[in-house]
Amino acid sequence: MNVEEARIGRLRALFAQGAARAGRDVEVDIGDDAAVLAPSLGRDVLSVDAHVEGVHFRRAWLTMRELGTRAATAALSDLAAMGAEPRAVLLSLALPAEVDEDQLDALALGVRDACDEVGARVIGGNLARASELSIHTTVLGRMSETPLTRRGALAGHGVYVTGTLGAAALGLAALVEGRTDPALAPFVTRWRRPRARISEGRRLVEIASAAIDVSDGLALDLARLADASGVGLELDLVELPTERDFASAAALLGRDPVALALRGGEDYELAFTAPESIALARLATRIGVVVPQRGLRATGSGGAAIAVAGFDHFGR
Amino acid sequence: MNVEEARIGRLRALFAQGAARAGRDVEVDIGDDAAVLAPSLGRDVLSVDAHVEGVHFRRAWLTMRELGTRAATAALSDLAAMGAEPRAVLLSLALPAEVDEDQLDALALGVRDACDEVGARVIGGNLARASELSIHTTVLGRMSETPLTRRGALAGHGVYVTGTLGAAALGLAALVEGRTDPALAPFVTRWRRPRARISEGRRLVEIASAAIDVSDGLALDLARLADASGVGLELDLVELPTERDFASAAALLGRDPVALALRGGEDYELAFTAPESIALARLATRIGVVVPQRGLRATGSGGAAIAVAGFDHFGR
Repeated sequence: MNVEEARIGRLRALFAQGAARAGRDVEVDIGDDAAVLAPSLGRDVLSVDAHVEGVHFRRAWLTMRELGTRAATAALSDLAAMGAEPRAVLLSLALPAEVDEDQLDALALGVRDACDEVGARVIGGNLARASELSIHTTVLGRMSETPLTRRGALAGHGVYVTGTLGAAALGLAALVEGRTDPALAPFVTRWRRPRARISEGRRLVEIASAAIDVSDGLALDLARLADASGVGLELDLVELPTERDFASAAALLGRDPVALALRGGEDYELAFTAPESIALARLATRIGVVVPQRGLRATGSGGAAIAVAGFDHFGR
Repeated sequence: MNVEEARIGRLRALFAQGAARAGRDVEVDIGDDAAVLAPSLGRDVLSVDAHVEGVHFRRAWLTMRELGTRAATAALSDLAAMGAEPRAVLLSLALPAEVDEDQLDALALGVRDACDEVGARVIGGNLARASELSIHTTVLGRMSETPLTRRGALAGHGVYVTGTLGAAALGLAALVEGRTDPALAPFVTRWRRPRARISEGRRLVEIASAAIDVSDGLALDLARLADASGVGLELDLVELPTERDFASAAALLGRDPVALALRGGEDYELAFTAPESIALARLATRIGVVVPQRGLRATGSGGAAIAVAGFDHFGR
């Protein structure tokens, strides 16, 4: 057995110990030319996401296990945004020679952690040599309902976001600057260990008129949603939900907390629009309203509407 | 619109001009968080394959369009081996800064060529910056029948292979050595422009007892099939199918044509086993027989059985 086959055999065993519920679906597992899933009703929902060393992460910033979880979570988050139920994951790894068996196992365990969390399973993959480490994660989801998309926001609907914003971006800023202040540690953890909002996405299928996952920053992602829906959004910046002590932690790095919440990426929260009448208090925070005039505008504590700089080109 | 969004928009338009039949299946296309396919009966068949610069290719060896076709074909070939019908493709591209818009378009056109050939469509993808060019292709197939796998070969069955062997490996050797002899040109073309044996795979579903695609060389891939099936294989090396003038072209590079046919990779032919009684003359060449004793052995022109060196560790 050559090295690659030994690695594939070990990864197969590792992933087979994942969520049992997901495994029942697998007719042909890792180790043949392709994986096969049992017939089932519903729509296939598919997405792929990549984590490339030096672009999306540095190895010094997180453990290999955290890296695996992050890479898989970023891909699974796209299924959350559609309201799909995760089913299977395929993993294409480009590995530098110095990534040893223990590191590969840790990376795979991290991917399995993310999959177990949402009931999915890694059913296939590819190992390739490379000079830089990269992780390309394909996710397959399933849903019988009509999927949520970025289109469908209607004037008068509310704008909502799950969880809190800016924490991961603040944590990343601390890592980039090499800061180890205890007050920043919870935010570093938020960057290292994101979660995909799968159960929230499932609930939103019957509620939301449009949705997107917040991966590139709330302002940019909401501008995409508004553009796809052909509407505008007015956000109340005072309402942006953030973690306790977020503002003081941001101040340690000289960062504006509102700017972090608005533009910081990798939150993996869901931003969505829905009729105002629906009670969403436990699921999300209301942060604005859909308006007919295209573009993304914000009101701050002063109350005056301003174009969200850098994104008003969506407002033509 | 930022550069990445402009690129995604252009790629979406390019892929939408692909096979119309494949497009009817797409409920949500490139441009949302995930793609959605219409509900349909049958099993999902999934695989992912990677092409990494400096490992699988050098840019000087082929055009970007050929590179796109090669990358997609290598992945689609895994669906052929299972007997699945290709349905959709997802493309994760890691792009160095010097890959310009024209080169990206050419790469995408090559992927579309391969997809059109088999009735599939690119429905999603990801673009990431990177220092080396790599292409990670996920393929989704569909089938209602029981899939072909590497397991199932029975003693007494014949061993078969579609098409011819060694041509791509000879072409690659010519590229590596920088040889431009006219006699080698057809083989270089074979390396540059492989085809996935999708229609052959579909026919084999009802015929073959086990199958694999020949990507890493006939000997290694057949050893995998034999190992998975718990049997041995005896090959008649005299019967290995090769192109006209293959032996004389191999001699130009000082290569043994039988070794190239047996160990040269990237043929993307299908090797399979099937009951002897079935007429397969038009579909494949009979190259050996399945035997109970594990391992891969070969008889040459001399007629004496020899272990195929390097793979007898499968015969324990």
